[in-house]
Amino acid sequence: MNNEELFAATAVNAWKVAIDQVDRLLSALTDEQLQMHVSPGRNRVYYIVGHLAALHDKMLPLLSFGARLHPELDEQFLKPDRSVPDTLSATDLRRAFGEINATLTQKIQSLPASEWLNRHMSVSEADFASNPLRNRLGVLLSRTCHVTFHAGQIRLAK
Amino acid sequence: MNNEELFAATAVNAWKVAIDQVDRLLSALTDEQLQMHVSPGRNRVYYIVGHLAALHDKMLPLLSFGARLHPELDEQFLKPDRSVPDTLSATDLRRAFGEINATLTQKIQSLPASEWLNRHMSVSEADFASNPLRNRLGVLLSRTCHVTFHAGQIRLAK
Repeated sequence: MNNEELFAATAVNAWKVAIDQVDRLLSALTDEQLQMHVSPGRNRVYYIVGHLAALHDKMLPLLSFGARLHPELDEQFLKPDRSVPDTLSATDLRRAFGEINATLTQKIQSLPASEWLNRHMSVSEADFASNPLRNRLGVLLSRTCHVTFHAGQIRLAK
Repeated sequence: MNNEELFAATAVNAWKVAIDQVDRLLSALTDEQLQMHVSPGRNRVYYIVGHLAALHDKMLPLLSFGARLHPELDEQFLKPDRSVPDTLSATDLRRAFGEINATLTQKIQSLPASEWLNRHMSVSEADFASNPLRNRLGVLLSRTCHVTFHAGQIRLAK
């Protein structure tokens, strides 16, 4: 591997470690335990999984990897109104999260190294020209941290 | 910036965002609130800060940045025995954490891009030859995720 490829592979590995971590935490919980709150008065694990699934699904177009798989998740999991009733069973939620992460990770692993430095789709060409750190790699690292932030919370349930 | 520099700068930025995040969360808590548990029966915020401070302090020699500033933290914060009584006031703990992060971040920002791909000091030359992802960048990303994991927990206190 050349240096660009080593940089990219190290970052992709961090993403995979983060996804593995949250997968392990969720595997240790039953469907009933997904309804637990991570701390009194805080989010349910179920809600956090849906929130992560919706946000990861949005990474597909953001990184120019293709169309979203589950745009219907936004209504329940990305709106400020948390009183929306649950529409997905725990089984369906787990399946959607797994499917989104598998598709995304396959695309992430296949991206040629130098393309990580291209702009992502929510920054304009002009803004990207003035701040080249608003690249796809920045999205990958930010989402890697985001899933890990919530993994720390899920760790507290049970 | 060339491509290597862009890769490195994007990763360094993720570290700085993570440190800023935990700093903001801690600034919002009083010294008394540092004694809160992040969830019933789980760690106190105080303990998590000490744990992060000790682990970040160990990054200095791990990344060949120099000697540790606060090796005395390990006794209280990195041992499995959590019954060790608190030896540091909240003020001293905050000061140590700030000092360690400032020193570390200054070294992180100054490292030439290609040196992120060198091995870190807890992997042998032979093991590094067989797995070049065990580089300094891998340590940086792993610790960036680690501090974010605990930030997610600190977020739940109060």
